[in-house]
Amino acid sequence: MTHPHPLDPIFFPRGVAVVGASRGSGGARGPGGWLQSLKDAGQPNIYPVNPRADEIDGLPAYARLTDIPGPVDHVISAIPAAYVLDMLEDASAKGVRSIHLFTAGFAETGIADRLELQHQLKSRANELGIRLIGPNCMGLYVPDGKVSFTQQLPTDSGPVAFFSQSGTNASDAAYNGALRGLRFSKVVSFGNAIDVSAAELLDYAEHDPNTDIIGAYIEGMPDARDFFRSLRSAARTKPVGLLKGGLLPSGGRATQSHTASLAGSGQIWAAAARQTNAVLVHNMQEMVDLLVGWRFGAVPAGPRIGLVVGGGGISVQGADDVEREGLQLPPLADHTLQRLADVTPVAGTGIRNPVDTMSLWDGERIRPTIQAVAEDPAIDAIIVQTGMNWGVGFFGDDQIENRRRMIAEIAEARERHGMAISMVVPINFNHRHGDSNAQLARMISDAGLPLYYNIRDAARAMKRLLTWNTRRTERAQP
Amino acid sequence: MTHPHPLDPIFFPRGVAVVGASRGSGGARGPGGWLQSLKDAGQPNIYPVNPRADEIDGLPAYARLTDIPGPVDHVISAIPAAYVLDMLEDASAKGVRSIHLFTAGFAETGIADRLELQHQLKSRANELGIRLIGPNCMGLYVPDGKVSFTQQLPTDSGPVAFFSQSGTNASDAAYNGALRGLRFSKVVSFGNAIDVSAAELLDYAEHDPNTDIIGAYIEGMPDARDFFRSLRSAARTKPVGLLKGGLLPSGGRATQSHTASLAGSGQIWAAAARQTNAVLVHNMQEMVDLLVGWRFGAVPAGPRIGLVVGGGGISVQGADDVEREGLQLPPLADHTLQRLADVTPVAGTGIRNPVDTMSLWDGERIRPTIQAVAEDPAIDAIIVQTGMNWGVGFFGDDQIENRRRMIAEIAEARERHGMAISMVVPINFNHRHGDSNAQLARMISDAGLPLYYNIRDAARAMKRLLTWNTRRTERAQP
Repeated sequence: MTHPHPLDPIFFPRGVAVVGASRGSGGARGPGGWLQSLKDAGQPNIYPVNPRADEIDGLPAYARLTDIPGPVDHVISAIPAAYVLDMLEDASAKGVRSIHLFTAGFAETGIADRLELQHQLKSRANELGIRLIGPNCMGLYVPDGKVSFTQQLPTDSGPVAFFSQSGTNASDAAYNGALRGLRFSKVVSFGNAIDVSAAELLDYAEHDPNTDIIGAYIEGMPDARDFFRSLRSAARTKPVGLLKGGLLPSGGRATQSHTASLAGSGQIWAAAARQTNAVLVHNMQEMVDLLVGWRFGAVPAGPRIGLVVGGGGISVQGADDVEREGLQLPPLADHTLQRLADVTPVAGTGIRNPVDTMSLWDGERIRPTIQAVAEDPAIDAIIVQTGMNWGVGFFGDDQIENRRRMIAEIAEARERHGMAISMVVPINFNHRHGDSNAQLARMISDAGLPLYYNIRDAARAMKRLLTWNTRRTERAQP
Repeated sequence: MTHPHPLDPIFFPRGVAVVGASRGSGGARGPGGWLQSLKDAGQPNIYPVNPRADEIDGLPAYARLTDIPGPVDHVISAIPAAYVLDMLEDASAKGVRSIHLFTAGFAETGIADRLELQHQLKSRANELGIRLIGPNCMGLYVPDGKVSFTQQLPTDSGPVAFFSQSGTNASDAAYNGALRGLRFSKVVSFGNAIDVSAAELLDYAEHDPNTDIIGAYIEGMPDARDFFRSLRSAARTKPVGLLKGGLLPSGGRATQSHTASLAGSGQIWAAAARQTNAVLVHNMQEMVDLLVGWRFGAVPAGPRIGLVVGGGGISVQGADDVEREGLQLPPLADHTLQRLADVTPVAGTGIRNPVDTMSLWDGERIRPTIQAVAEDPAIDAIIVQTGMNWGVGFFGDDQIENRRRMIAEIAEARERHGMAISMVVPINFNHRHGDSNAQLARMISDAGLPLYYNIRDAARAMKRLLTWNTRRTERAQP
């Protein structure tokens, strides 16, 4: 470990104990099955703790933390809240450095005794020098540290850090991001945040050499000043996307039930985002859209979009969508139209931007099509909408090969022209083309292109990335 | 046929010829393969026409229409535009009543000669008494008439009619609607609309005893007065959803390339929708959301929503989403909270609306949970968010059985309380839970419950249905 931040030991434990692990369902009551999740992550030192078992899912089980032979840096607590204080003493005796409390039932219940228990837990952990993650959360997914809060996530890491007060949102970012090519340095679900806080995690990510892009889902924080200080500092050096839960009245009521957070008003958060140049989104899909845009080069040089699609109805709606999101679709130059006409069949197409062209499904013609649009002086960035639900029957059965060639040509065009290009593949499950669209989506992600599920989402992300980049450039000026 | 409308023969042909059918790819150059689509639809009398083949895909082929032995009411034209006028004469000699012109390359190209060809075609067809669908379109999907424009669509019919100037949008409605339980009386893709028009199709749907719900995607029309007259009349007796393409400048440019339509302004269309009580949507997903809402009883009695979810992060975002769409989430009554507390574990839950409860994954507790919310005097309608991506490991491996019971309980609660209930299952493809979510979606649709892919979409549809219903009720008053 070259990185000296105080949180580092949490992310790279020498051994992990699961207190409250039980037989079946992957070895724990937790949603993913903690033991299986840790096995999937490649963790070599997993210790189930359960006084009523000798062995769980093929691993030796121990009655108490202090019975474990090897070093245990990190504990996952899956026992009821009432037993946590006792376990904390054992953890201290064992030399544990951090406890992730999957255990819920503290301040978020709104019950006075439970709030008091949370206070005691925090104060005692502080005395013992043990860091707490949570309570009421899913904890850690750190591929390089070989820990994971759920199963079947990628074991390779990448430059994105994501911090979330919600376990569902942390899991959404990891799974749905993974499909679209995102890999993570750290994903932390930190629930009620009584110790390890959003401010501290942002500070960590800012200084983490393995993190280039930061996302966070926040419900509230005890010390807003701390948080905004960390946010301002982190957003100065790295892109930061922010989803704030509970901006509206009943959402705010929900944050209290969820993580005992007071939510704060929408105006304050919008102003904070403007001042810090953090990018505010409305939901987790927009969050992943944004992270994908940063990761795979969807930051446009300006607002003028060339829209390349296959299908007339899509071209019309897509054009409306791009403009509705605050971007422009300028008419193409005569010279460009001439170049496009040379490679576009006259029937059933349109080339005046949107470019609705069958070239999308033709390995030969996609290159001159993209090239003509990219070289038009009025175009700053390109959105390409494609899919597997058309063209079947036009070009024989080698559809996948055609798409592979299309993707390679587009990836190459992006390098050649240094232009942001976002790809759109419709998502439909249980649809006739669902499987092949999933395959196409993987091919696009593997090629390092940013993938979106519809034109509007792609345009919305580009608009946000443009605003972010413009502010950043203005600030960088003397 | 009991229905006497002049368009009827188009929808129920005694035989269908595909002019320009060719070998391979399902027998035609068309996207779906016309021959295969007709076979899938169960059409008993399919006649490929191609002067260079004796047999195509197992069917005897004919050199000309006039060589076909049996009656041919309907022709699908898949030949280039230049040959269509000659084919028209043959069709007349054969007694054909309607021609669907998949053939494109007319006015939408913006080329003067092509526009002239379109005029000639229309005028000659009028003289011969042959109705034209298109040109530049996908034509018909009519399960009861045994015709289909693409493959693997349901062969059973239902009460929804959908008319679209875009083939992609017609196909989207059919496929994506089918997944969510929609079945169709007629889907018509009618492209440039030089003969059979949106006005005439609306008129047909209004009087069609097999149609209860109407959707339309419109780009433009030659006679707006006709259209609005039909729209006003149809929307008085049946719910009508309307998607208008090309409302913004570049989308308007795209409608010209697509179907040679002049788009008209957004204000005019918004006013027309208000006056007629047709419901305007922004894209095809919102269209299907709306049709599903009408079909499966998602019209709320008022704006006050009970939101039942599984997961804290979802509960917070979902609450924000419901309010953002203009609906309300009132706090529940003390009495309701007591009832919910009796069946909800205290840890990791919230019951103050949103109701974030693990009861969703427990066959025993879902009934009292839904019942308590439905009987709260402050609640007009319910949105339930669920999925397969949680609860694994909590309740053993019988997840599907648990969900089946949950769905049955919810469907029953809906009947008992006469309350609109919308279901939400997240859509994610190639995700760990994609397949099981698809299975869950099917189970929900099979139970006759309205299915949405996220809380915001469900709320948006409910808000539109509420506005529609309020206007309708006001108008019905003396």
